[in-house]
Amino acid sequence: MDLERYIRERSSVNGDIVNVDTFLNHKVDAALMGVIGRRIAGIAAPLRPDVLVTAEASGIAPALSAASELRIPMIYAKKYVLPGPREAVSREVASATKGFEYTIEIRRRVLDAGLRALVVDDFLARGRTAVALGEIVEDIGCRMLGAVFVIEKGWVGGRHLLEDRGWPVWSVVNIASVEGGVIQFG
Amino acid sequence: MDLERYIRERSSVNGDIVNVDTFLNHKVDAALMGVIGRRIAGIAAPLRPDVLVTAEASGIAPALSAASELRIPMIYAKKYVLPGPREAVSREVASATKGFEYTIEIRRRVLDAGLRALVVDDFLARGRTAVALGEIVEDIGCRMLGAVFVIEKGWVGGRHLLEDRGWPVWSVVNIASVEGGVIQFG
Repeated sequence: MDLERYIRERSSVNGDIVNVDTFLNHKVDAALMGVIGRRIAGIAAPLRPDVLVTAEASGIAPALSAASELRIPMIYAKKYVLPGPREAVSREVASATKGFEYTIEIRRRVLDAGLRALVVDDFLARGRTAVALGEIVEDIGCRMLGAVFVIEKGWVGGRHLLEDRGWPVWSVVNIASVEGGVIQFG
Repeated sequence: MDLERYIRERSSVNGDIVNVDTFLNHKVDAALMGVIGRRIAGIAAPLRPDVLVTAEASGIAPALSAASELRIPMIYAKKYVLPGPREAVSREVASATKGFEYTIEIRRRVLDAGLRALVVDDFLARGRTAVALGEIVEDIGCRMLGAVFVIEKGWVGGRHLLEDRGWPVWSVVNIASVEGGVIQFG
């Protein structure tokens, strides 16, 4: 499957927003997700992760698909706008697209210290969700192996926020620009 | 895999709450989810659904696993506590476990009228999320085929709320009671 062609043909672009809700993060093309899972697993396998870590909700499908390929568990951080249970390690995240802050958290009892954890998410834009996940993973005492994204919005530059912390970054597809409503891959 | 034994041994029960966050709805056992997906697909196949419909976040993993088996797409309704975009068909849902109301919605452009839609979710308790999903599906003009759940909390009786609307209900595992912290299957 030509992933870049698929994404170019089916996304709707509006300014800086690349809308993928008809196949990736509202309606999900299960066959596409299988392909994405295998691509992520191919990147992840040499890193020997014990667990994949993502955030609800849009990270769940790609992380589960990859975890199934790798035969390891995945954890999705819970997201709270109103206060949630506090038996967890959490970070505040300011959402660019939603316009408000929320908290993501992982309960200690689902992630043992000492494991090798790899972050997976659908989009890399400013990288704040991934930074929050990486910090939670390290707070719990796990080895943060880096982060793999389905789609990187390369022109936003969020990659550097992660790399500056020593976390390697991979993306399955890198969008270099969306000038004039046309997706250009990097 | 003996699903009932797996669930009995790994759940933690506290009053009426059956906590499955170490394998189903926070940390996800990808191998278990493969088994669950095949069980749901076995129930769904004779109904010839065009699409599976669930709600974020905990419904995504079982619905995606089943959709992969059935080779059909899945849609997860978006959940909003604060106001979300309004280009969608929505319902208010009162959450028993979270203690507040939220809105779930499906954007019309991801679900075409006339399709055969089957609801999938992780838990059936009072059935209010599934009723909201069924009403959204019918509002959009789809045929609501019924609902399949991974775990039914049989003693709560939510099944009747769905059956009274003419929607058949299936569950992969039916918990009849949790008296004294012990799970008894129905």
